[in-house]
Amino acid sequence: MKSVNVVLYENFTALDVFGPVEVLGNIEDYSIRYVSEDGSIVCNQQGIKIETMPMESVEDSEILLIPGGYGSRIVIQNAAFIEKLAVLMQRSRYILCVCTGSALAAATGRLDGKNATSNKTAFDWVKTCGPKVNWNRDARWVRDGNVYTSAGVSAGTDMAVGFVKDLFGEEKAKTICNRMEYHWNADADHDIF
Amino acid sequence: MKSVNVVLYENFTALDVFGPVEVLGNIEDYSIRYVSEDGSIVCNQQGIKIETMPMESVEDSEILLIPGGYGSRIVIQNAAFIEKLAVLMQRSRYILCVCTGSALAAATGRLDGKNATSNKTAFDWVKTCGPKVNWNRDARWVRDGNVYTSAGVSAGTDMAVGFVKDLFGEEKAKTICNRMEYHWNADADHDIF
Repeated sequence: MKSVNVVLYENFTALDVFGPVEVLGNIEDYSIRYVSEDGSIVCNQQGIKIETMPMESVEDSEILLIPGGYGSRIVIQNAAFIEKLAVLMQRSRYILCVCTGSALAAATGRLDGKNATSNKTAFDWVKTCGPKVNWNRDARWVRDGNVYTSAGVSAGTDMAVGFVKDLFGEEKAKTICNRMEYHWNADADHDIF
Repeated sequence: MKSVNVVLYENFTALDVFGPVEVLGNIEDYSIRYVSEDGSIVCNQQGIKIETMPMESVEDSEILLIPGGYGSRIVIQNAAFIEKLAVLMQRSRYILCVCTGSALAAATGRLDGKNATSNKTAFDWVKTCGPKVNWNRDARWVRDGNVYTSAGVSAGTDMAVGFVKDLFGEEKAKTICNRMEYHWNADADHDIF
């Protein structure tokens, strides 16, 4: 099984996580785990209390998923968390950031010089978290090498389908959308929001 | 605060839950809780381990959300669960069923004579769970009185936006879609799947 590691922190946004998880969970040999700084139960403002494992328990990831959320503005100030995130990013084959998850990834310095996008409402703040990133405000999602970043919340689901298409082909992406009865917004470059 | 109670069971589908939760979580005075038959930690095939409260701890719900998932085919055989679900449905002002969640609701008998829909792939099985329900195969979602039912997985998010529109008006629904950067499929009556 190949591992998908989802980084959680207090007050992550649910759909940032579970839209992409629903897509990636349809790939037969992916096994999904939830990790956090200390491996505790992580809560969010939507009443979710979810069990996690410590970030340092992860050796390698096929995919690292970094969601956004109101809590990203708090956890970004936690140097230990950002340091652990940098290690995890280095150990991951693909990195998928949703919404303000890209601010967390940018704070590690590992997006410097890369093209990326983020939530439109929080865009000005996100830019300050990675002044050396080439931020693209128009995109629904952006791929640069092994790093994918998406616009806000729901855009993460579209990005995840795009990721599946890139890796496994259009037929697989279509099969998953049918199973999810999901209307895929396939245009990565343009976002109406 | 008004309560949104989400019924969980082993192997529920994540997006059935967290699409609607993302929508309803944007209503300021809604408080979301997760409940299960025995109030234990509920797991699913996407690696989620989530804390819940016992179903009988719920006195009244503003909204009861019943998700679908592979596990619905197992839990529907659990008479005690269906009995508790029937009580919860009676104590809820609105009932929102996603995907095969409508099969669970139908198994209580409380959808008899009502119009409803469900997941297209599982439709024939769902019909057998509620032979006295007027099943509509073409709809993205259906409202009948205080009961909403949606087609598969992602359709639950569209239904939740439709619910917000019905209850709070189009402007509120639009604001939430903007915050979620969500392309709402607004046509309840037609589903392309």
